Amino acid sequence: MADSGTSRAYGYTDNKDKLLKRLARAEGQVRGVARMVEEDRYCIDILTQLAAVDTALEGVALEILDDHVKHCVVNAVTSGEEANAAEKVDELLAAVRRFVKTR
Amino acid sequence: MADSGTSRAYGYTDNKDKLLKRLARAEGQVRGVARMVEEDRYCIDILTQLAAVDTALEGVALEILDDHVKHCVVNAVTSGEEANAAEKVDELLAAVRRFVKTR
Amino acid sequence: MADSGTSRAYGYTDNKDKLLKRLARAEGQVRGVARMVEEDRYCIDILTQLAAVDTALEGVALEILDDHVKHCVVNAVTSGEEANAAEKVDELLAAVRRFVKTR
Amino acid sequence: MADSGTSRAYGYTDNKDKLLKRLARAEGQVRGVARMVEEDRYCIDILTQLAAVDTALEGVALEILDDHVKHCVVNAVTSGEEANAAEKVDELLAAVRRFVKTR
Repeated sequence: MADSGTSRAYGYTDNKDKLLKRLARAEGQVRGVARMVEEDRYCIDILTQLAAVDTALEGVALEILDDHVKHCVVNAVTSGEEANAAEKVDELLAAVRRFVKTR
Repeated sequence: MADSGTSRAYGYTDNKDKLLKRLARAEGQVRGVARMVEEDRYCIDILTQLAAVDTALEGVALEILDDHVKHCVVNAVTSGEEANAAEKVDELLAAVRRFVKTR
Repeated sequence: MADSGTSRAYGYTDNKDKLLKRLARAEGQVRGVARMVEEDRYCIDILTQLAAVDTALEGVALEILDDHVKHCVVNAVTSGEEANAAEKVDELLAAVRRFVKTR
Repeated sequence: MADSGTSRAYGYTDNKDKLLKRLARAEGQVRGVARMVEEDRYCIDILTQLAAVDTALEGVALEILDDHVKHCVVNAVTSGEEANAAEKVDELLAAVRRFVKTR
């Protein structure tokens, strides 16, 4: 499924710093949940925190999806290479289905 | 929302080690996603990994919810303290709603 | 999975009229979506309508879940019949899992 | 948000019969849920049926989304009308976000 394009720059490249910051924050949130478990914190408070991590990661995924469609998919479609474009579109739709299923 | 019960042991206490292991693994997965972004990996592959983290955290949340209902909620209801039982039930349903919304 | 309790009244009984009204409205919404497809309406507008039906049915399900926990589960737990209470709790958690998975 | 294209045929046009059959079935399922409520059927059994309707409608939505991307979005992008293409892409991403939120 890896892209063998000549360019290494994907849609999210311009947002890299922002994405890395959000992922670092999400990682800290997961660590925070583990600390709550260690400290025997109340179940419902832990669930609330887990829901916050989910929302954060969902935001990252939607951002990457946006950038992917606006760059990779649009480029593949306008390139005129029909097989490549069709593959990109199928791959995108499979990703959306996976997204919907995991929620 | 914190519980001021005399006992510090919540439903998930017996599963603590298992939960901490799963959270440590999820934390590593988030770090792995960040590494993929840093290395300019393909968008769709990153989305697949993010979906895996979501599934892992969802599993942790459902485990905590199970333990919470089987211990905290059941104990509150059988204790006969009606106000406390009603509060626990309301809290549980709010947590389920939050869960459904974040997905 | 059917309950063989002596009483036929479940948690949602008091809300029956409200639930039936909401379900009739949801049924009309599904019919409306079919009409949009017949009339060749724009895809995105149809998706918006489908999302509205989903939200409506989710509201009905959460209402039934609320009533179920507040009546059936609480009654089973306070009845002192431990096997029945455990079954009700397991059943509830399975329903929540199914709910989360379908979203 | 309605499309003012000269052609009335959207992506799902070729699948119209199949979609209408699936929507008729979903409508019947909603009616079945209402009947269960009327007949005082067990809460958990009703929730199971509601989950089945959700899955059915989700299938319809994903089918329409597929057809939409493969036809409308791809056509807009290859047409070379950049503003129109950008609008279609934004609209698509908004639909995916709405989809994810309602789950």
